[in-house]
Amino acid sequence: MAASDEGARGRTGSTRRQFLLGGAAAGFGAVAALSAEHTLDRPAAGAEPAPLHGTETVPFHGAHQAGIATDAQAYATFVALDLHDGVDREALGRLMRVLSDDAARLTQGEAALADTEPELAVVPARLTVTFGFGPRFVERAGGEAPSWLHPLPAFAVDRLEPGFSDGDMLLQVAADDQLTVSHATRMLLKDARGFADVRWTQRGFRRAHGSVAPGTTMRNLFGQVDGTANPVPGTPDFDEVVWATEGWMAGGTSAVVRRIHMDLDEWDTVGRAGREQAVGRTQASGAPLTGTAEHDEPDFTARTDAGFSVIPEFSHVRRARGVDEGRHDRIFRRGYNYDDTPSGDHVSDAGLIFACFQADVDRQFTPMQRRLAELDLLNRWTTPIGSSVFAIPPGCEPGGFVGDTLLT
Amino acid sequence: MAASDEGARGRTGSTRRQFLLGGAAAGFGAVAALSAEHTLDRPAAGAEPAPLHGTETVPFHGAHQAGIATDAQAYATFVALDLHDGVDREALGRLMRVLSDDAARLTQGEAALADTEPELAVVPARLTVTFGFGPRFVERAGGEAPSWLHPLPAFAVDRLEPGFSDGDMLLQVAADDQLTVSHATRMLLKDARGFADVRWTQRGFRRAHGSVAPGTTMRNLFGQVDGTANPVPGTPDFDEVVWATEGWMAGGTSAVVRRIHMDLDEWDTVGRAGREQAVGRTQASGAPLTGTAEHDEPDFTARTDAGFSVIPEFSHVRRARGVDEGRHDRIFRRGYNYDDTPSGDHVSDAGLIFACFQADVDRQFTPMQRRLAELDLLNRWTTPIGSSVFAIPPGCEPGGFVGDTLLT
Repeated sequence: MAASDEGARGRTGSTRRQFLLGGAAAGFGAVAALSAEHTLDRPAAGAEPAPLHGTETVPFHGAHQAGIATDAQAYATFVALDLHDGVDREALGRLMRVLSDDAARLTQGEAALADTEPELAVVPARLTVTFGFGPRFVERAGGEAPSWLHPLPAFAVDRLEPGFSDGDMLLQVAADDQLTVSHATRMLLKDARGFADVRWTQRGFRRAHGSVAPGTTMRNLFGQVDGTANPVPGTPDFDEVVWATEGWMAGGTSAVVRRIHMDLDEWDTVGRAGREQAVGRTQASGAPLTGTAEHDEPDFTARTDAGFSVIPEFSHVRRARGVDEGRHDRIFRRGYNYDDTPSGDHVSDAGLIFACFQADVDRQFTPMQRRLAELDLLNRWTTPIGSSVFAIPPGCEPGGFVGDTLLT
Repeated sequence: MAASDEGARGRTGSTRRQFLLGGAAAGFGAVAALSAEHTLDRPAAGAEPAPLHGTETVPFHGAHQAGIATDAQAYATFVALDLHDGVDREALGRLMRVLSDDAARLTQGEAALADTEPELAVVPARLTVTFGFGPRFVERAGGEAPSWLHPLPAFAVDRLEPGFSDGDMLLQVAADDQLTVSHATRMLLKDARGFADVRWTQRGFRRAHGSVAPGTTMRNLFGQVDGTANPVPGTPDFDEVVWATEGWMAGGTSAVVRRIHMDLDEWDTVGRAGREQAVGRTQASGAPLTGTAEHDEPDFTARTDAGFSVIPEFSHVRRARGVDEGRHDRIFRRGYNYDDTPSGDHVSDAGLIFACFQADVDRQFTPMQRRLAELDLLNRWTTPIGSSVFAIPPGCEPGGFVGDTLLT
């Protein structure tokens, strides 16, 4: 069901889908009427109900996989798999056929073929499933690996844990509803179980669908806007930054997934001025220190009366971009916050699932990361504890499967 | 800001709040225009944007604490705290004063006094903070403990882990936006840090705000509707089931929080008929096996042609209610699904954060749980691994604090 149908859907409509969504229509109607009359905490009668967004879908088939140019959903689970011994090219073909079939159905709000909880599949909520291949996957497939498909070089700031690093295969499962993400992830993993084991799982979130205006740049748990300088999907600039153009990877891209622990307790001790100098942007608006609005272009040449750079040489925004090295490295960030259960006397175990896409890791991501590892004020409060690189193959057409340019 | 103001808010309005939500208004507008024109995966131009729900608030002050009669939000974090040695009645008063002040502000979309990330506080998204007191809290306060404020009796089905059980104090932090829940939880824990340590944390979710119709009964990860027979907030029935009436607890209630692991892998092997017999309801609609709509009253006297009960004697719905013992025990369920990172060759570590409220645990909850522990087909696939009981004091008025009927 296309999103544009939603506006026309009345709350009293009774389709089969609504039946599944709302329980039996008669029973639901009775309860809703009672609630509207008696419950104190709900919006007052007269407030127009928002159209339901749970039935919105993102196409699965196409030249590129979904979940990259797709406006980031509220929740994402990243799962890395390790292939079982003996899973060969032929088996990989079977694996990707079944997973692609599952994803094609689930993303459109239909149960997977072997689905035992079809009732959980009826709220696609812009579900996307994005598949990635690690070095061993491509090797087993007998394909030519992109030159950049290898672990990142070691950086001095890294404290990598194997339980959050590497992997033969990536599933990025994202939607605006966490129950949808849970159900889809489990369905995919059940079908992958005969071929691969889970190596790691990372669960992340952004602002809920509809809680803030569409297009609002996410904030991370430091309170910073995160992702302002991103290329804009659908523009030639985005296409150039993100999509690979050659061989079986044409129309694909690369994913770097890094788990960045953020020391919120130490960050708390830093004053606002210190925070803004570290980042090079104001915390309230995300504007560069030389501007007033988030999307103002930073002026890296601006100097204070005392002759210092307004955007400090050591600030994150300046180091990331590489202006002082005469570069302008570009990647497309699509990260998620994480907030897991802390241990000991810490009150949080939180950070960022840094996920980015670019045509060439070695050429676009690694120089940026090397500069940041060498010198970035934010390093004092952030620690990379996981790191993976995957080849994201192009999308597939109906009848095909993700990976068919490699496996057929 | 009241929810009813939201409908009138245009997308181009530029208030201070919108500035904080959307980054600088000018910058946001430029990007939004660009995105609407170029991005393929977003709803087509012409679709009316839904009003933002992030600014909806639930009152903090009142006769009862919020977060109980409040229509359940999409996300909840439950945190149990252990008091430090030496935290006495006077210190408990200070603790509850500061936490109540934090909650009063955060739930209304304002930063807490000591907030270092005020930008994360501007999306209340129906945030509620509900406080509960364990046995030691009431003892240290020198108050009279309700007769039911003690760990539940041991049940044969229990496999309780200390890391998910008991505690001196409960925080239930719930909102329709997970970043809001994260920020509020951390803010409260920072202020509680001098008084108490985190004993356990449990994070749960339901369907996202606006993804399904308001009033839809939640589904758990078995695919079942869960909570159909609940009393309806705002009715005399609800008031009788939930609210205590005597002493410092008048207007309060009790919370039972149990962590129920669900063996999804085994559940997968059960056919649909077997599942429905185990529960006594159909999976698709949640209707009792004697009815056609979710909210049809079960007919426990109905028999098949062969003389068996249509709703089996061993089914969950029949055992929970106690019909065969001549009882009709009532509680108010307000649970959340959990889905954490699995270990080994399991593809999920999932279940239900079973949370319920009732005036008297011993009288209302324990007989029900005893019957279910003795005989309930669902026990084959579910295992209680955590259990806590808390006294939920009444709400407070402006100028007061939660717990003031006990501590002043």
